[in-house]
Amino acid sequence: MRAALDAAATAAAAGEVPVGAVVMLDGKIVATAANAPRALNDPTAHAEILAIRAAAQALGRDRLDDCDLWVTLEPCAMCAGAIAHARIARLYYGAEDAKGGAVAHGPRFFGQPTCHHRPEIYSGIGEEEAGALLKGFFAGRR
Amino acid sequence: MRAALDAAATAAAAGEVPVGAVVMLDGKIVATAANAPRALNDPTAHAEILAIRAAAQALGRDRLDDCDLWVTLEPCAMCAGAIAHARIARLYYGAEDAKGGAVAHGPRFFGQPTCHHRPEIYSGIGEEEAGALLKGFFAGRR
Repeated sequence: MRAALDAAATAAAAGEVPVGAVVMLDGKIVATAANAPRALNDPTAHAEILAIRAAAQALGRDRLDDCDLWVTLEPCAMCAGAIAHARIARLYYGAEDAKGGAVAHGPRFFGQPTCHHRPEIYSGIGEEEAGALLKGFFAGRR
Repeated sequence: MRAALDAAATAAAAGEVPVGAVVMLDGKIVATAANAPRALNDPTAHAEILAIRAAAQALGRDRLDDCDLWVTLEPCAMCAGAIAHARIARLYYGAEDAKGGAVAHGPRFFGQPTCHHRPEIYSGIGEEEAGALLKGFFAGRR
Protein backbone atom coordinates (compact mmCIF):
# COMPACT_ATOMS: atom_id res chain seq x y z
CA MET A 1 0.00 0.00 0.00
CA ARG A 2 3.02 2.30 0.53
CA ALA A 3 3.73 2.27 -3.22
CA ALA A 4 0.05 2.92 -4.00
CA LEU A 5 -0.03 5.89 -1.60
CA ASP A 6 3.13 7.29 -3.18
CA ALA A 7 1.51 6.96 -6.62
CA ALA A 8 -1.56 8.79 -5.30
CA ALA A 9 0.66 11.65 -4.11
CA THR A 10 2.22 11.78 -7.58
CA ALA A 11 -1.27 12.10 -9.11
CA ALA A 12 -2.08 15.00 -6.79
CA ALA A 13 1.13 16.79 -7.76
CA ALA A 14 0.08 16.42 -11.41
CA GLY A 15 -3.34 17.96 -10.74
CA GLU A 16 -5.21 14.66 -10.90
CA VAL A 17 -7.51 13.23 -8.23
CA PRO A 18 -5.01 11.44 -5.94
CA VAL A 19 -5.54 7.71 -6.30
CA GLY A 20 -2.79 5.14 -6.74
CA ALA A 21 -2.82 1.41 -7.47
CA VAL A 22 -0.34 -1.46 -7.47
CA VAL A 23 -0.60 -5.01 -8.87
CA MET A 24 1.45 -7.60 -7.00
CA LEU A 25 2.40 -11.18 -7.83
CA ASP A 26 4.17 -13.44 -5.31
CA GLY A 27 4.95 -10.47 -3.07
CA LYS A 28 6.57 -8.48 -5.87
CA ILE A 29 5.25 -5.35 -7.62
CA VAL A 30 4.30 -6.05 -11.25
CA ALA A 31 2.81 -2.62 -12.01
CA THR A 32 2.21 0.73 -10.28
CA ALA A 33 -0.06 3.48 -11.59
CA ALA A 34 -1.42 6.89 -10.67
CA ASN A 35 -4.85 8.19 -11.68
CA ALA A 36 -4.33 10.18 -14.91
CA PRO A 37 -7.47 10.75 -17.04
CA ARG A 38 -6.60 14.38 -17.75
CA ALA A 39 -2.92 13.95 -18.53
CA LEU A 40 -3.65 11.01 -20.84
CA ASN A 41 -6.89 12.36 -22.40
CA ASP A 42 -8.44 9.06 -21.35
CA PRO A 43 -11.62 8.88 -19.25
CA THR A 44 -10.82 5.23 -18.42
CA ALA A 45 -7.37 6.07 -17.00
CA HIS A 46 -8.13 5.41 -13.35
CA ALA A 47 -5.19 4.05 -11.36
CA GLU A 48 -6.68 0.54 -11.17
CA ILE A 49 -7.28 0.31 -14.94
CA LEU A 50 -3.76 1.54 -15.73
CA ALA A 51 -2.17 -0.84 -13.21
CA ILE A 52 -4.20 -3.84 -14.45
CA ARG A 53 -3.40 -3.06 -18.10
CA ALA A 54 0.31 -2.62 -17.34
CA ALA A 55 0.44 -5.85 -15.32
CA ALA A 56 -1.35 -7.81 -18.07
CA GLN A 57 1.12 -6.42 -20.61
CA ALA A 58 4.09 -7.26 -18.39
CA LEU A 59 2.86 -10.82 -17.83
CA GLY A 60 1.70 -11.33 -21.43
CA ARG A 61 -1.82 -12.53 -20.60
CA ASP A 62 -5.29 -11.12 -20.00
CA ARG A 63 -6.02 -12.93 -16.73
CA LEU A 64 -4.34 -11.98 -13.47
CA ASP A 65 -5.81 -14.72 -11.29
CA ASP A 66 -2.59 -15.08 -9.29
CA CYS A 67 -2.27 -11.31 -8.67
CA ASP A 68 -3.46 -8.92 -5.97
CA LEU A 69 -4.53 -5.30 -6.45
CA TRP A 70 -3.78 -2.61 -3.89
CA VAL A 71 -5.57 0.72 -4.37
CA THR A 72 -5.89 3.79 -2.15
CA LEU A 73 -9.63 4.35 -2.79
CA GLU A 74 -12.67 2.08 -3.04
CA PRO A 75 -12.98 1.16 -6.75
CA CYS A 76 -15.79 2.61 -8.90
CA ALA A 77 -18.06 0.46 -11.12
CA MET A 78 -15.67 0.69 -14.07
CA CYS A 79 -12.71 -0.48 -12.00
CA ALA A 80 -14.68 -3.12 -10.08
CA GLY A 81 -15.76 -4.54 -13.45
CA ALA A 82 -12.16 -4.54 -14.67
CA ILE A 83 -11.03 -6.30 -11.47
CA ALA A 84 -13.61 -9.05 -12.15
CA HIS A 85 -12.63 -9.37 -15.82
CA ALA A 86 -8.95 -9.63 -14.82
CA ARG A 87 -9.79 -12.29 -12.21
CA ILE A 88 -7.76 -10.46 -9.54
CA ALA A 89 -7.35 -12.80 -6.54
CA ARG A 90 -7.32 -10.27 -3.69
CA LEU A 91 -8.40 -6.62 -3.55
CA TYR A 92 -6.97 -4.36 -0.83
CA TYR A 93 -8.29 -0.81 -0.70
CA GLY A 94 -7.86 2.24 1.51
CA ALA A 95 -10.51 4.97 1.85
CA GLU A 96 -14.22 4.37 1.38
CA ASP A 97 -15.91 6.25 -1.48
CA ALA A 98 -19.55 6.79 -0.57
CA LYS A 99 -20.09 9.02 -3.61
CA GLY A 100 -18.64 6.87 -6.37
CA GLY A 101 -17.58 3.53 -4.90
CA ALA A 102 -19.04 0.29 -6.26
CA VAL A 103 -17.70 -2.26 -3.76
CA ALA A 104 -19.31 -1.23 -0.44
CA HIS A 105 -21.59 1.43 -1.98
CA GLY A 106 -23.97 1.94 -4.91
CA PRO A 107 -24.15 -1.17 -7.10
CA ARG A 108 -22.01 -3.27 -4.69
CA PHE A 109 -20.85 -4.92 -7.85
CA PHE A 110 -19.14 -8.01 -6.45
CA GLY A 111 -22.43 -9.12 -4.88
CA GLN A 112 -24.37 -8.93 -8.16
CA PRO A 113 -25.40 -12.15 -9.91
CA THR A 114 -23.99 -10.66 -13.15
CA CYS A 115 -20.51 -10.45 -11.57
CA HIS A 116 -18.56 -13.52 -12.68
CA HIS A 117 -15.57 -13.23 -10.36
CA ARG A 118 -15.33 -11.92 -6.81
CA PRO A 119 -11.89 -11.31 -5.30
CA GLU A 120 -11.18 -11.61 -1.60
CA ILE A 121 -11.71 -8.05 -0.34
CA TYR A 122 -9.86 -6.20 2.45
CA SER A 123 -10.73 -2.55 3.11
CA GLY A 124 -9.50 0.28 5.32
CA ILE A 125 -5.79 -0.33 4.70
CA GLY A 126 -3.97 3.01 4.86
CA GLU A 127 -7.33 4.74 4.70
CA GLU A 128 -6.27 7.65 6.90
CA GLU A 129 -3.41 8.72 4.64
CA ALA A 130 -5.41 7.93 1.47
CA GLY A 131 -8.35 10.00 2.70
CA ALA A 132 -6.11 12.88 3.81
CA LEU A 133 -4.57 13.04 0.31
CA LEU A 134 -8.05 13.27 -1.26
CA LYS A 135 -9.32 15.85 1.27
CA GLY A 136 -6.23 17.99 0.81
CA PHE A 137 -6.57 17.83 -2.96
CA PHE A 138 -10.23 18.86 -3.07
CA ALA A 139 -9.77 21.53 -0.36
CA GLY A 140 -7.00 23.06 -2.46
CA ARG A 141 -9.29 23.30 -5.50
CA ARG A 142 -12.16 25.12 -3.80
CA MET B 1 -24.74 0.43 -35.92
CA ARG B 2 -23.65 -1.05 -39.25
CA ALA B 3 -20.01 -0.22 -38.49
CA ALA B 4 -20.33 -1.63 -34.96
CA LEU B 5 -21.80 -4.89 -36.30
CA ASP B 6 -18.97 -5.15 -38.83
CA ALA B 7 -16.44 -4.65 -36.01
CA ALA B 8 -18.19 -7.40 -34.03
CA ALA B 9 -17.81 -9.76 -37.00
CA THR B 10 -14.11 -8.88 -37.14
CA ALA B 11 -13.79 -9.81 -33.45
CA ALA B 12 -15.42 -13.19 -34.09
CA ALA B 13 -13.04 -13.91 -36.96
CA ALA B 14 -10.14 -13.18 -34.56
CA GLY B 15 -11.50 -15.64 -31.97
CA GLU B 16 -12.78 -12.93 -29.64
CA VAL B 17 -16.33 -12.62 -28.30
CA PRO B 18 -18.04 -10.68 -31.12
CA VAL B 19 -18.83 -7.21 -29.84
CA GLY B 20 -18.19 -3.99 -31.74
CA ALA B 21 -18.48 -0.31 -30.79
CA VAL B 22 -18.40 3.05 -32.54
CA VAL B 23 -18.12 6.60 -31.16
CA MET B 24 -19.81 9.26 -33.28
CA LEU B 25 -19.67 13.05 -33.21
CA ASP B 26 -21.95 15.22 -35.36
CA GLY B 27 -22.98 12.19 -37.43
CA LYS B 28 -19.39 11.19 -38.20
CA ILE B 29 -17.45 8.19 -36.90
CA VAL B 30 -14.63 9.24 -34.54
CA ALA B 31 -13.54 5.74 -33.51
CA THR B 32 -14.46 2.11 -34.19
CA ALA B 33 -13.31 -0.86 -32.13
CA ALA B 34 -13.73 -4.61 -31.82
CA ASN B 35 -13.60 -6.55 -28.56
CA ALA B 36 -9.98 -7.74 -28.15
CA PRO B 37 -8.92 -8.72 -24.60
CA ARG B 38 -7.06 -11.83 -25.75
CA ALA B 39 -5.26 -10.34 -28.73
CA LEU B 40 -4.15 -7.33 -26.69
CA ASN B 41 -3.45 -9.17 -23.40
CA ASP B 42 -5.73 -6.59 -21.80
CA PRO B 43 -8.74 -7.61 -19.67
CA THR B 44 -10.15 -4.08 -20.06
CA ALA B 45 -10.12 -4.25 -23.88
CA HIS B 46 -13.86 -4.45 -24.45
CA ALA B 47 -15.05 -2.76 -27.64
CA GLU B 48 -16.61 0.17 -25.72
CA ILE B 49 -13.43 0.89 -23.74
CA LEU B 50 -11.24 0.77 -26.85
CA ALA B 51 -13.62 3.00 -28.83
CA ILE B 52 -13.92 5.54 -25.99
CA ARG B 53 -10.14 5.63 -25.48
CA ALA B 54 -9.51 6.03 -29.23
CA ALA B 55 -12.13 8.78 -29.53
CA ALA B 56 -10.71 10.67 -26.54
CA GLN B 57 -7.24 10.42 -28.06
CA ALA B 58 -8.50 11.58 -31.46
CA LEU B 59 -10.32 14.56 -29.93
CA GLY B 60 -7.55 15.39 -27.43
CA ARG B 61 -9.77 15.49 -24.35
CA ASP B 62 -11.08 13.16 -21.65
CA ARG B 63 -14.77 14.12 -21.89
CA LEU B 64 -16.93 13.07 -24.83
CA ASP B 65 -20.09 14.93 -23.82
CA ASP B 66 -20.95 15.73 -27.44
CA CYS B 67 -20.45 12.13 -28.61
CA ASP B 68 -22.69 9.09 -28.97
CA LEU B 69 -21.68 5.46 -28.45
CA TRP B 70 -23.10 2.65 -30.54
CA VAL B 71 -22.39 -0.90 -29.32
CA THR B 72 -23.73 -4.28 -30.40
CA LEU B 73 -24.23 -5.66 -26.85
CA GLU B 74 -25.56 -4.23 -23.60
CA PRO B 75 -22.53 -2.79 -21.77
CA CYS B 76 -21.12 -4.51 -18.65
CA ALA B 77 -20.39 -2.65 -15.39
CA MET B 78 -16.86 -1.74 -16.49
CA CYS B 79 -18.08 -0.25 -19.76
CA ALA B 80 -21.13 1.44 -18.22
CA GLY B 81 -18.78 3.09 -15.73
CA ALA B 82 -16.50 4.23 -18.55
CA ILE B 83 -19.49 5.64 -20.46
CA ALA B 84 -20.41 7.70 -17.40
CA HIS B 85 -16.82 8.90 -16.84
CA ALA B 86 -16.61 9.91 -20.52
CA ARG B 87 -19.94 11.77 -20.27
CA ILE B 88 -21.23 10.08 -23.45
CA ALA B 89 -24.44 11.89 -24.55
CA ARG B 90 -26.38 9.00 -26.07
CA LEU B 91 -25.92 5.23 -25.78
CA TYR B 92 -27.36 2.97 -28.48
CA TYR B 93 -27.00 -0.78 -27.95
CA GLY B 94 -28.12 -3.96 -29.71
CA ALA B 95 -28.58 -7.28 -27.91
CA GLU B 96 -29.52 -7.57 -24.26
CA ASP B 97 -26.99 -9.29 -21.96
CA ALA B 98 -28.88 -10.90 -19.09
CA LYS B 99 -25.70 -12.62 -17.83
CA GLY B 100 -23.26 -9.72 -17.76
CA GLY B 101 -25.12 -6.53 -18.68
CA ALA B 102 -25.18 -3.59 -16.29
CA VAL B 103 -27.66 -1.25 -17.99
CA ALA B 104 -30.95 -3.22 -17.95
CA HIS B 105 -29.62 -6.06 -15.77
CA GLY B 106 -27.59 -6.64 -12.60
CA PRO B 107 -26.44 -3.35 -11.06
CA ARG B 108 -28.49 -1.24 -13.55
CA PHE B 109 -25.63 1.19 -13.12
CA PHE B 110 -27.15 4.33 -14.67
CA GLY B 111 -29.94 4.26 -12.07
CA GLN B 112 -27.52 4.15 -9.11
CA PRO B 113 -27.09 7.27 -6.95
CA THR B 114 -23.31 6.77 -7.29
CA CYS B 115 -23.55 7.18 -11.08
CA HIS B 116 -22.68 10.79 -11.90
CA HIS B 117 -23.75 10.88 -15.55
CA ARG B 118 -26.56 9.07 -17.31
CA PRO B 119 -26.66 9.11 -21.12
CA GLU B 120 -29.89 8.92 -23.11
CA ILE B 121 -30.30 5.17 -23.72
CA TYR B 122 -31.76 3.40 -26.76
CA SER B 123 -31.71 -0.41 -26.87
CA GLY B 124 -32.60 -3.18 -29.32
CA ILE B 125 -30.99 -1.56 -32.36
CA GLY B 126 -29.69 -4.29 -34.65
CA GLU B 127 -30.19 -6.76 -31.82
CA GLU B 128 -31.13 -9.65 -34.13
CA GLU B 129 -27.85 -9.54 -36.06
CA ALA B 130 -25.83 -8.74 -32.92
CA GLY B 131 -27.39 -11.67 -31.06
CA ALA B 132 -26.91 -14.04 -34.03
CA LEU B 133 -23.20 -13.18 -34.14
CA LEU B 134 -22.85 -14.02 -30.44
CA LYS B 135 -24.90 -17.23 -30.66
CA GLY B 136 -22.94 -18.42 -33.70
CA PHE B 137 -19.66 -17.69 -31.94
CA PHE B 138 -20.49 -19.56 -28.75
CA ALA B 139 -22.13 -22.47 -30.65
CA GLY B 140 -18.92 -22.86 -32.67
CA ARG B 141 -16.84 -23.13 -29.49
CA ARG B 142 -18.88 -25.89 -27.84
